[in-house]
Amino acid sequence: MTSPRKKQLGRSVSIVGAGMSNFGAYKEKTNRDIFVDAFMDMTEHMDNGIDISDIEAGYLGNYSADLFEGQGHTAPIVADWLGMTPTPITRIENACASSGSALREGVMAIASGLYDVVLVGGVEKMTDLPTEGVTDVLASAADGLYEVPAGFTFPGIYGALAQAHMERYETNLDHLLKVGIKNHNNGALNPKAQFNTTIKSLMERRIMRAKDRGEAIPAWSNELDFLNDDKANPWIAWPLRLYDCAPITDGGACLLLVASEIADGFTSKPIEIVGTGQATGRPLHSAEELTSLSATKYAASQAYDMAGVSPSQIDVVEVHDCFTIAEIVASEDLGFFEPGEGPRAADEGRTALSGDRPINTSGGLKAKGHPVGASGVAQVIEIYHQLRGEAGARQLPNKSPELGLTHNVGGTGGTCVVNIFRRN
Amino acid sequence: MTSPRKKQLGRSVSIVGAGMSNFGAYKEKTNRDIFVDAFMDMTEHMDNGIDISDIEAGYLGNYSADLFEGQGHTAPIVADWLGMTPTPITRIENACASSGSALREGVMAIASGLYDVVLVGGVEKMTDLPTEGVTDVLASAADGLYEVPAGFTFPGIYGALAQAHMERYETNLDHLLKVGIKNHNNGALNPKAQFNTTIKSLMERRIMRAKDRGEAIPAWSNELDFLNDDKANPWIAWPLRLYDCAPITDGGACLLLVASEIADGFTSKPIEIVGTGQATGRPLHSAEELTSLSATKYAASQAYDMAGVSPSQIDVVEVHDCFTIAEIVASEDLGFFEPGEGPRAADEGRTALSGDRPINTSGGLKAKGHPVGASGVAQVIEIYHQLRGEAGARQLPNKSPELGLTHNVGGTGGTCVVNIFRRN
Repeated sequence: MTSPRKKQLGRSVSIVGAGMSNFGAYKEKTNRDIFVDAFMDMTEHMDNGIDISDIEAGYLGNYSADLFEGQGHTAPIVADWLGMTPTPITRIENACASSGSALREGVMAIASGLYDVVLVGGVEKMTDLPTEGVTDVLASAADGLYEVPAGFTFPGIYGALAQAHMERYETNLDHLLKVGIKNHNNGALNPKAQFNTTIKSLMERRIMRAKDRGEAIPAWSNELDFLNDDKANPWIAWPLRLYDCAPITDGGACLLLVASEIADGFTSKPIEIVGTGQATGRPLHSAEELTSLSATKYAASQAYDMAGVSPSQIDVVEVHDCFTIAEIVASEDLGFFEPGEGPRAADEGRTALSGDRPINTSGGLKAKGHPVGASGVAQVIEIYHQLRGEAGARQLPNKSPELGLTHNVGGTGGTCVVNIFRRN
Repeated sequence: MTSPRKKQLGRSVSIVGAGMSNFGAYKEKTNRDIFVDAFMDMTEHMDNGIDISDIEAGYLGNYSADLFEGQGHTAPIVADWLGMTPTPITRIENACASSGSALREGVMAIASGLYDVVLVGGVEKMTDLPTEGVTDVLASAADGLYEVPAGFTFPGIYGALAQAHMERYETNLDHLLKVGIKNHNNGALNPKAQFNTTIKSLMERRIMRAKDRGEAIPAWSNELDFLNDDKANPWIAWPLRLYDCAPITDGGACLLLVASEIADGFTSKPIEIVGTGQATGRPLHSAEELTSLSATKYAASQAYDMAGVSPSQIDVVEVHDCFTIAEIVASEDLGFFEPGEGPRAADEGRTALSGDRPINTSGGLKAKGHPVGASGVAQVIEIYHQLRGEAGARQLPNKSPELGLTHNVGGTGGTCVVNIFRRN
């Protein structure tokens, strides 16, 4: 009964502002404080300024302030802290894809004709709980009837994906570790990253410390030596080690979206959202295969179709590397590499800043940090800066990337959001 | 910098299907089971049927499966249970206004041009926790820094509103109780209501039971006698008694929205969404006044403006009566009665099914039940049936109501959503 028309937005939507808190562990701050940090960062960097009363609606991605902080109804609470009442604001939750979905809601709100200026963002305050508590809260995004009672935590689930990939494609442990090394190299160039440091520096600091303390000096001659050391880089869930896992992070991020027809009033360098896709995947326990996330493929296909572009045209990409294996799988599911080629591409440096297919120039979730509800929008912020040519030390060598893509996953592929952006 | 254009949707959106689970306490069912009940009820009652694969996107209102059931990422989990993958689905959370907001997102998704057929719904499974636990979870929707540590629960907060209203307008306890009596009268006509019974019947059953047991027969000659008995109707938070409070409920509800241009393919009696508004209010601790919710006024003003109608034109109304005082305050804030006139209107029967301004013909949250994340959509279902002339025993005496309105509140006015509907 549905019409077979090609789906397109009634109005074009552009990004004209972006702000991010520092990512890290901020014991003294609440959710609302952190989001205000992000918002202030955005307002300070608006090309032509912004009055908070010009914002007509807001969408806030947040996975579970409920479980992390005991605070529900978090969007209006944050809006009140910002001084944004009576502007309507709505919390969007799709686990770690919450703010990827929040961005889409902002896009649709403007395209619908209802609003012209919309704030979208995400925030998560994770460090109030001990690590085991955080692991439990994150596990709540898996299937509570089938997966959690079977003992699956997220490292366990992604460990299973890694095992399947290793089995099927001869992926090895060093392939995984190299993704982490590359993302830390990028994170070292990102002042807001939680780990603003290379693995090499971390290794050298450890060696220095051993020397200072008169301890046995570790025989690491390079990063892979260091990362293959069970003490320096302990196993979390085989085949994943500590440095295969994104950290626990407090952070917030936001973007200002406007109808493209009025973007010029805000900046001379708006970034248009030219494609958007979202899909739902079956939970791991009944997924069709483990070496790919079906939701990524569906969401990507929608976004590519809407934008009218193919993977080879994308200049810069942020993918959801909650674990190193997740980046490899995403790089294949998004069509950048053939199935099974992702590990080799990572190994050969093709996904590095200087490679032919740069991925996670921000440092990714691995090094930049992963405040789960904020990560989707934080990815878009990196693309926004890269496309505007203002990514600083990590600006792509080709100074004029034109098309960017973000890939944000919730659960084990339960939700995937893919968005495509174009510099005009 | 924003354009001053009049806000309107790019495409008209209509409701063509509605389904609801029974509302009550279902210990053996989870969130996902309950939503499937609602969905099945909808599909069974579609005028021309519906194939689940025709649904292009979904929005699920849910307050906190996180805290009630330990399940996050609940929208894709429910979608998988429905067999709805890979259709994108997103959880919307604005406390007890979650599904009111979900409806709005569905409207904007269609108006944006991205989708033609969208499922919107809400679900909450509340009865796994003991009553004190539920009270704590609901209190999480208040301000966790200022209100909760001061000892405020929701009955306490609405008790404060009731006190302020009594002080300012000579509202009395019987005015409040009469709202509950009226809503139970309506709920008695609603087979899906949690309390499908009048207060009078409850009273008579108690008298019968006393007789059967040979106990002293209570000297209640009418409902007000019964409700003013401290044993039969204990105080919860002065001036609110048990029967001033909506119950704890498990329930789900859903609607099928389509672009109005294709509505005829689904039904000959679509209901158009002609106005929508949402606003954020300051938390109680810093609200400007306690006898009114500012968010209601802002949201209503947006909805009336968009629909081009005034309060006097509305034929049937569902308001957010989480407590009896809330219905009275809403009836004033929405412009149906002057400030302070709400209690008198309730007293005189003007808001009854046979009155000139029927409110909560479904039984309202009080008698129908209040599964918090589902209540917003459940309100719309009542309007849908009333406007289609299929509300059964509670169909308005005037068989052809044309305009309906819903009013859905989250927190203590932190969020308010007002939607207006028209029969074509």
